[in-house]
Amino acid sequence: MPLTLYDLAAAEPERRFSPYCWRSKMALAHKGLSFETIPWRFVQRDVIAFSGQGRVPVLHDGEDVVFDSWTIAGFLEDRYPDRPSLFGGAGGRALARFVNAWADGVLVPAIARMTVADIYAHLDPGDRPYFRQSREDRFGMPLEEVIADRDARVLDFRQSLAPMRNVLAAQPYLCGAAPAYADYIVFGCFQWSRCISAFPLLLKDDPVWAWRDRLLAQFDGLAGKAPGYSV
Amino acid sequence: MPLTLYDLAAAEPERRFSPYCWRSKMALAHKGLSFETIPWRFVQRDVIAFSGQGRVPVLHDGEDVVFDSWTIAGFLEDRYPDRPSLFGGAGGRALARFVNAWADGVLVPAIARMTVADIYAHLDPGDRPYFRQSREDRFGMPLEEVIADRDARVLDFRQSLAPMRNVLAAQPYLCGAAPAYADYIVFGCFQWSRCISAFPLLLKDDPVWAWRDRLLAQFDGLAGKAPGYSV
Repeated sequence: MPLTLYDLAAAEPERRFSPYCWRSKMALAHKGLSFETIPWRFVQRDVIAFSGQGRVPVLHDGEDVVFDSWTIAGFLEDRYPDRPSLFGGAGGRALARFVNAWADGVLVPAIARMTVADIYAHLDPGDRPYFRQSREDRFGMPLEEVIADRDARVLDFRQSLAPMRNVLAAQPYLCGAAPAYADYIVFGCFQWSRCISAFPLLLKDDPVWAWRDRLLAQFDGLAGKAPGYSV
Repeated sequence: MPLTLYDLAAAEPERRFSPYCWRSKMALAHKGLSFETIPWRFVQRDVIAFSGQGRVPVLHDGEDVVFDSWTIAGFLEDRYPDRPSLFGGAGGRALARFVNAWADGVLVPAIARMTVADIYAHLDPGDRPYFRQSREDRFGMPLEEVIADRDARVLDFRQSLAPMRNVLAAQPYLCGAAPAYADYIVFGCFQWSRCISAFPLLLKDDPVWAWRDRLLAQFDGLAGKAPGYSV
């Protein structure tokens, strides 16, 4: 039985935009594992109730059920140690947690503020009431107002990528000569936006753009061929 | 012949405050290498002219001369592979570069804005004119004005440490169960401030404080015993 991943979907079932699900899909591909994805919507909590919680990604591997992208990456590394490493050793695994925390604490909130209304626009009608309510509660304003100042915010966002540019000036990937899980962590954030928004987070002359392009092409274009915007 | 490190000194020769030199000293201690430090001042460019540039740290190891803290760490890892690893493998080495870029791009500029006048106050009189001129050129205002709003700035600074707190909730050090070079990279930033400023960057109930405390005690108190402020 192939591995199965529950994967957040927009109104179009093949538009899969969750940054966390993208991390897991890239990790599965990196390990060379064949896997199937099951499109999942926010309101389908009963469908993943077997995992004991209500968010995706959820991975089914034989008898094992694993949720949370960081936990899934560790599970895959430990379960399939003879396949290409996601971390490149214990030191890399420890520091990938820092990259994960940086991406979740710096990039995800910033991208959410710039694209949350675009996410809404792509959602299945059944997901829209929940999404609008929960996100407007979080931001304290209508989704359309949240993104209103994004032309200014994106300048700060690009500035916050300075550590990445510094690294990419010295090596092609965050993980060195070849991509690995820390690259997929950050890539998932950009892919999230690319799948549901025409707003340009990156400029074409940014080394981060070129890095993202290489990751879009990885694994026979797994991410690059996915429905999304060419920004 | 022991290894020799040229180490930035304040007016008191034993007050050594450079964040980059602290990274190298912690790295040398991690490798279990005995080393001597030579106090060095900003104006003594002729003293390190043999290195082909004008900044410390500069490491002398037999015939080899190495400068720049990142380069020194890589040199030590490659030269002394049988001693405790600074990186924990290739993956850790690649991602330590990201931590280095984050520390240099986020922490160092923020700490400089809060402490630059305190640095000046501790400098040898011979260093003061160069330091005031070069830093006032950089900031575009008198040093005393640069730090004037630090009570407000420190709140943003503490917020910028969120990724560290997230990691430290899961593991005792950035590098995992034990400290290694990525910890020393960030620790050097805090030690820089601690050596020359009574301004409290951290609150005592911050997990980053406890992490720093453990690093101050490391290597028989190498950093903790150094002249500095108990903040």
